[in-house]
Amino acid sequence: MTYVLHYAPDNASLVIRLALEHRGIPYTGQLVDRASRAQESATYRALNPNGLIPVLQTPQGPLFETGAILLWLADKHGQLGPGPHDPDRGAFLKWLFFLSNTIHPALRMLFYPDKYIAPDHKEALSVGAEAGVHQSFKTLDAVAAENPPFLGAHHPTVLDFYSAGTLRWPALYPKDRNRGWFRLTNYPALHDLCARLESLPCTAALQKAEGLGMTPFTAPKPPNPPEGSAT
Amino acid sequence: MTYVLHYAPDNASLVIRLALEHRGIPYTGQLVDRASRAQESATYRALNPNGLIPVLQTPQGPLFETGAILLWLADKHGQLGPGPHDPDRGAFLKWLFFLSNTIHPALRMLFYPDKYIAPDHKEALSVGAEAGVHQSFKTLDAVAAENPPFLGAHHPTVLDFYSAGTLRWPALYPKDRNRGWFRLTNYPALHDLCARLESLPCTAALQKAEGLGMTPFTAPKPPNPPEGSAT
Repeated sequence: MTYVLHYAPDNASLVIRLALEHRGIPYTGQLVDRASRAQESATYRALNPNGLIPVLQTPQGPLFETGAILLWLADKHGQLGPGPHDPDRGAFLKWLFFLSNTIHPALRMLFYPDKYIAPDHKEALSVGAEAGVHQSFKTLDAVAAENPPFLGAHHPTVLDFYSAGTLRWPALYPKDRNRGWFRLTNYPALHDLCARLESLPCTAALQKAEGLGMTPFTAPKPPNPPEGSAT
Repeated sequence: MTYVLHYAPDNASLVIRLALEHRGIPYTGQLVDRASRAQESATYRALNPNGLIPVLQTPQGPLFETGAILLWLADKHGQLGPGPHDPDRGAFLKWLFFLSNTIHPALRMLFYPDKYIAPDHKEALSVGAEAGVHQSFKTLDAVAAENPPFLGAHHPTVLDFYSAGTLRWPALYPKDRNRGWFRLTNYPALHDLCARLESLPCTAALQKAEGLGMTPFTAPKPPNPPEGSAT
């Protein structure tokens, strides 16, 4: 079967889609209509009980959690990161989990504070999340600056795609909040990673499919997707 | 080389130690003295720049992030979960990442709110985190109730050990907060998982090494470790 990626433009599905496009893995995109909150429907929750985007339908059933899908694809198709017997596997995994359990959740708190705290306290949560994300990007930047084979987009891996997504979103979201705390140039090695990814055909494919604009990672503009809604 | 596990009693290192003991993998425990905040020292941060416990020193360098270490050990030594070519690999990975990026971070917010938010807002964050953890355990319980081969401790996997740790801690921590919201019996399949783990030699080893008491998962008591401090 061909994979089916349940996606919404500029959502976490973007990261999966970059990996699929880069590796030339056949898939069909299935739009999740966020405008009607389709991700919370019973139909969608049958795929992912958490009601989150993305889901990748595979012969092993519906997969979710961005990090899990990325790792599964990398191991299944190769060339997207150090394999199970690679000496860099341990380092690759620790930074993949760090992105998944530290950077990505902090971004979710920043973008969807209502899911975590009562309205009167959202501002305080956002301030804390911004500080956490900044510190985490500093840490990841120091890793990228050492030029490990799995981070920096010299030979793109799923870690590069995941990094680029998490570096794009805080420049654009949440729309109703000052985002001046985030400057990609604070993280020079991650900036270079983003610049390298922008020259790849997979990025061109996403620019077209999800309306990401000219410099989607180094200088993101709000998306103008041909279908669906990012928020 | 023999692995070196940097641990503190009843910390996330507990989960790694259960896996190492269960699989009979040789390792040396290296106590991190939390009482003197040794995890934040320059020496420790050279192993893990995030200053978090555990770290596992391996021939591939220092590994961290609980989920990454668990997966690396499972793939390296076998018998601790579905391998890369197993048809259950995708499902195994999605729930491993879910534990790592949803349950574990919410517990950290509950245990260490100061790291996330200003003091006046800690109570609100804790209330939100409790609701999130409860919902996540309900979701995980529904998975375990289906008796998949990788969750339920019929054939213990790293997912079982990780689940048991995250089900133990909210019964004990934070010490200064009412913990009545948490009842393991609300999650019957996860309760059974915990009961099965309690009969294993790996649990007996941890009861001795970290002073976990008689029923460390189904009815936890505060630890009485022979050395070191849990908090």
